[in-house]
Amino acid sequence: MGNPSAVLYGIRDVRIEDRPEPHPGPGEVVVEIDAVGICGSDVHYYEHGRIGDFVVEQPMILGHEAAGTIVETGDGVDGSRVGQLVALEPGIPDFTCEQCLHGRYNLCPNVRFFATPPVDGAITRRLVVPVAFAHPAPAGLDPEQAAMAEPVSVGVWACRKAGVTVGDRVLVTGAGPIGLFAAQVARSFGAAEVLLTDTNPHRLAVAEQLGFAVGDAREPIPGEHDVLLECSGAAAAFAAGLRSLAPAGRAVLVGMGADTVSVEVPLTQGRELSITGIFRYANTYPDALGLIASGRVDVARVITDRFPIEDTEAALTLARREPRALKAIVNPGA
Amino acid sequence: MGNPSAVLYGIRDVRIEDRPEPHPGPGEVVVEIDAVGICGSDVHYYEHGRIGDFVVEQPMILGHEAAGTIVETGDGVDGSRVGQLVALEPGIPDFTCEQCLHGRYNLCPNVRFFATPPVDGAITRRLVVPVAFAHPAPAGLDPEQAAMAEPVSVGVWACRKAGVTVGDRVLVTGAGPIGLFAAQVARSFGAAEVLLTDTNPHRLAVAEQLGFAVGDAREPIPGEHDVLLECSGAAAAFAAGLRSLAPAGRAVLVGMGADTVSVEVPLTQGRELSITGIFRYANTYPDALGLIASGRVDVARVITDRFPIEDTEAALTLARREPRALKAIVNPGA
Amino acid sequence: MGNPSAVLYGIRDVRIEDRPEPHPGPGEVVVEIDAVGICGSDVHYYEHGRIGDFVVEQPMILGHEAAGTIVETGDGVDGSRVGQLVALEPGIPDFTCEQCLHGRYNLCPNVRFFATPPVDGAITRRLVVPVAFAHPAPAGLDPEQAAMAEPVSVGVWACRKAGVTVGDRVLVTGAGPIGLFAAQVARSFGAAEVLLTDTNPHRLAVAEQLGFAVGDAREPIPGEHDVLLECSGAAAAFAAGLRSLAPAGRAVLVGMGADTVSVEVPLTQGRELSITGIFRYANTYPDALGLIASGRVDVARVITDRFPIEDTEAALTLARREPRALKAIVNPGA
Amino acid sequence: MGNPSAVLYGIRDVRIEDRPEPHPGPGEVVVEIDAVGICGSDVHYYEHGRIGDFVVEQPMILGHEAAGTIVETGDGVDGSRVGQLVALEPGIPDFTCEQCLHGRYNLCPNVRFFATPPVDGAITRRLVVPVAFAHPAPAGLDPEQAAMAEPVSVGVWACRKAGVTVGDRVLVTGAGPIGLFAAQVARSFGAAEVLLTDTNPHRLAVAEQLGFAVGDAREPIPGEHDVLLECSGAAAAFAAGLRSLAPAGRAVLVGMGADTVSVEVPLTQGRELSITGIFRYANTYPDALGLIASGRVDVARVITDRFPIEDTEAALTLARREPRALKAIVNPGA
Repeated sequence: MGNPSAVLYGIRDVRIEDRPEPHPGPGEVVVEIDAVGICGSDVHYYEHGRIGDFVVEQPMILGHEAAGTIVETGDGVDGSRVGQLVALEPGIPDFTCEQCLHGRYNLCPNVRFFATPPVDGAITRRLVVPVAFAHPAPAGLDPEQAAMAEPVSVGVWACRKAGVTVGDRVLVTGAGPIGLFAAQVARSFGAAEVLLTDTNPHRLAVAEQLGFAVGDAREPIPGEHDVLLECSGAAAAFAAGLRSLAPAGRAVLVGMGADTVSVEVPLTQGRELSITGIFRYANTYPDALGLIASGRVDVARVITDRFPIEDTEAALTLARREPRALKAIVNPGA
Repeated sequence: MGNPSAVLYGIRDVRIEDRPEPHPGPGEVVVEIDAVGICGSDVHYYEHGRIGDFVVEQPMILGHEAAGTIVETGDGVDGSRVGQLVALEPGIPDFTCEQCLHGRYNLCPNVRFFATPPVDGAITRRLVVPVAFAHPAPAGLDPEQAAMAEPVSVGVWACRKAGVTVGDRVLVTGAGPIGLFAAQVARSFGAAEVLLTDTNPHRLAVAEQLGFAVGDAREPIPGEHDVLLECSGAAAAFAAGLRSLAPAGRAVLVGMGADTVSVEVPLTQGRELSITGIFRYANTYPDALGLIASGRVDVARVITDRFPIEDTEAALTLARREPRALKAIVNPGA
Repeated sequence: MGNPSAVLYGIRDVRIEDRPEPHPGPGEVVVEIDAVGICGSDVHYYEHGRIGDFVVEQPMILGHEAAGTIVETGDGVDGSRVGQLVALEPGIPDFTCEQCLHGRYNLCPNVRFFATPPVDGAITRRLVVPVAFAHPAPAGLDPEQAAMAEPVSVGVWACRKAGVTVGDRVLVTGAGPIGLFAAQVARSFGAAEVLLTDTNPHRLAVAEQLGFAVGDAREPIPGEHDVLLECSGAAAAFAAGLRSLAPAGRAVLVGMGADTVSVEVPLTQGRELSITGIFRYANTYPDALGLIASGRVDVARVITDRFPIEDTEAALTLARREPRALKAIVNPGA
Repeated sequence: MGNPSAVLYGIRDVRIEDRPEPHPGPGEVVVEIDAVGICGSDVHYYEHGRIGDFVVEQPMILGHEAAGTIVETGDGVDGSRVGQLVALEPGIPDFTCEQCLHGRYNLCPNVRFFATPPVDGAITRRLVVPVAFAHPAPAGLDPEQAAMAEPVSVGVWACRKAGVTVGDRVLVTGAGPIGLFAAQVARSFGAAEVLLTDTNPHRLAVAEQLGFAVGDAREPIPGEHDVLLECSGAAAAFAAGLRSLAPAGRAVLVGMGADTVSVEVPLTQGRELSITGIFRYANTYPDALGLIASGRVDVARVITDRFPIEDTEAALTLARREPRALKAIVNPGA
């Protein structure tokens, strides 16, 4: 098969099919994909056929955490980049709107994000991206590690929005892949203490192996924190985390799941807390790749399972089947 | 009577009584008070005997929006300041805790704030303050104007926390004294447009006289905003205001009243909104006085009623009796 | 003549000649130019044929402060914009480099800036720009006013970099067009006091008419300032201005002219001063236009002379001939 | 001898003499000093009797990098703190001036800084400080390590002013104790790369042992940097470092020595560089102690020599005698 791709046709209906060969336009590159991480959003589309207003109405290739090798370059691109391992930033903005010009291209109203209907994703053998969104992997990285620049970017963005810095005491609620990456990133930003909470003992065990203090999310939160990175999507975790913040504390809503969170006004005013939501990330890939390459962020402990492209469906159902599972990788070249 | 003071003994029990003459310690000044604004918190203590955990358990002088003339100086204070009109910053911190050393003295856990039990307030003829908290009024201000540095400070602090700047479209929900001052302050920070909403037509009429666009708080909010200054204390106003924010919009919880507000997670994430609560203010008095002195903030239209100290109770009940009323001033010297 | 343009062939050699009609590509518009401000850089190219490393090696159209009317739209542009008055942002970046993606498109290494060799400028009847850089003028503006969005943008950018806000005492050294605009912009950002210095009494008179305190640049600077906007290009003005800054003061190098400035280390350390240089501006046009439209920035007092396109050379020599002159406008349609 | 102290009487005239026993006032503690680092400023006073306008006109105890044990507490201080190891923050501000209230207490015009004439320093057995400036050392630190919180604080402050964060490429010019600490702090703030330059091969060897890239300060600087921390005090190092900065780069003047530095205007404007001077530090001690305790900042490799108080003069002349020497520690209890 020339360009095998994992296409979602509807709820629990993923098919591996051949897609046309892509050709690069000006400023674009063709990348041969070697690793794609499975994200909760992929699983959600697979199980529900939609996320909020985004509905899978026509067959769509899944996957947006991807890395691979440049195999062809379009006009205006340095041809010597052929052969380079790159991580793909999956949200292509229009580059010229007000949000883009302000450097907030993640908020571009015309952004085309991989595997968000109707835009095709990255579980495919070859695809085309603008060269600016094909980020060179530092020497020594393998495709799996490079692909993790996507979820690590979420952590980088969360820490930037929270202004995590030396001395901060950080609480990360939710020890799934995003929480485990965000915690490591917070440590890289200089956090003095990082506490991870979850209800899943497997995840807390990994957190401990990575050197973090851990807590059961059903128990009261010990201590006082400067920063809350809410990565579980649970409204109760946010509320409890907010209460644990010190004066001038900062909270970031990272996890998705809750429709609303409740904010106590006297608490928020009395301590002058700030709360921010994040939407993907902007200008994070080189930093995320650098953190992975330097070992400050260990992705090996978070990647638990690997699948060839034919078994994409098994990758999508893994989390349901295996409480120990964290990040699954699909290799479209295997 | 030597030092007449308006003392709250319990619910709806205010008595004018003579209090001992104050004497300045080192670094302190005695101020003869000429104007005290009545704040909603004074009214709340008068009607309920408490605000949250702060309970009036012993007789307490009311009032915290005060200005007057320095009549005596303590050791280490420049004696030439006698005769100077000053606005009194009402929250005296301990100066040496972690919050104070970071410049966040409003969050000092040991702050002593006028007319917050058990600390006496300013509806009194003479009182003592540290000289650093007796801010010189610019030439030409009268005591009433200087006293308004307190509620104007709330607006300054809200605008600083929101980062209001040139070009911003600002929504102020609630057109009471705080909202009317905050709106004028926002304009002074460079806001391009300011929209004030309320349900009280008298207040909206004043807002219009001050040059603002106005709207009925029960109607949908027109337009898109960069900043929300929520000054009504109504959870519904906050929710609707938040929905009107543009990407990267910033909201500040200024008004008190609601126990909780509900925050829509997809909205807050999708637009990367930020939400902050404020608690009083820090380092605002010189700027607030400057705004009043320059005419950028017009306090005359907001001060609607004046009372001698004997009629303090009438001042406290004014808002209930008169929907047209905004800010009442008590003059302890009249 | 179909598309008359003012073309610099070499030192003191400007010719009015017909240039080919422009046609819009996708995402572009054709603008019929009605007003172009003459900037010191235009004069410098006219007199010296170069600015630093930028050398006029082939004939180049002058002018970069331009406004006009959209007369044709390319593919993907809303056709209803034909007839709209727009101000043209003159530096077109590549939109996709690291600087652009961070929102610093003014630092794009591939930026093409009007009338910077070899890029043609705007003293021409019709030209093409990307629609994102054709900023709609608010209702009521005329082309001259809209064209001034360019130098006003320099003031907006300087004030943003300096963080000018309510209460600041601002010193602007140099009362040419840039200084006069920057001072007005600083006031719009909330500055409490603005002092303008220059050696030219005509310019100081205009500054006074605009409501500013003024000083002779050869005299000692009175008072203490929070912000220095150095708009004269004179190293001595910068040095003296820096010395007048209060602790935590901020200085911005706006003016060009000096190769180096000298910074006193004990002064800069002892007061923790910060110094920044600015290069053009980014994301300022809508705000600049809003300031002009609201009357916060008065451009009428700064525009002193007007010329038809045939007299472009007279416009370029005006400043040398007339000490009273400030901003000259060339109208390619007149 | 009851309270032996190292007192500077004049140029190259240090005497060990008994000083009166200190007694704590309200809010103060008596600390028994166990370690004092020798700073370049101590050496400068010893050799020249002055630094700029600060002249040793009466005998003055030297030393300001001190740690020891609380042995007595004044009124209002928790008595259980007796026995606690503390690092002493050596600049006691007035706490109530404008600078202090803004959190910039290092810029307090009334600050009393150890061993800055006429204020006595810390090479003494017992001294008194306000308890807020006696910072508890984390468990496991010894007095030498705790004393290093002072020079490490300089690095923390420099990195905060520069906004060092994940991904930054940092150049530190000068590999003396301050540079070696600043480099380690920069790494703790997340810097991706840190390059240290010096002319002293001993110092560069230590830098390499600490894991840094190094360069000869007389050679061209390789690469491009986001941040320059100038710690050598050499004007040429600053100029060369500035030239190595990328667009939007930030430079901090940390080192003292040069009277002026020269700043290239086209460079600073064209890349929009920012330059800041720092004066001591504020709110850094807990973070500095945390960095030392966590091992992120290794002080052991920087402390090269130790002296009993009788040999204070040998400690002061060490740097002149021994090119390999870095930080000398005097122990007033030995």
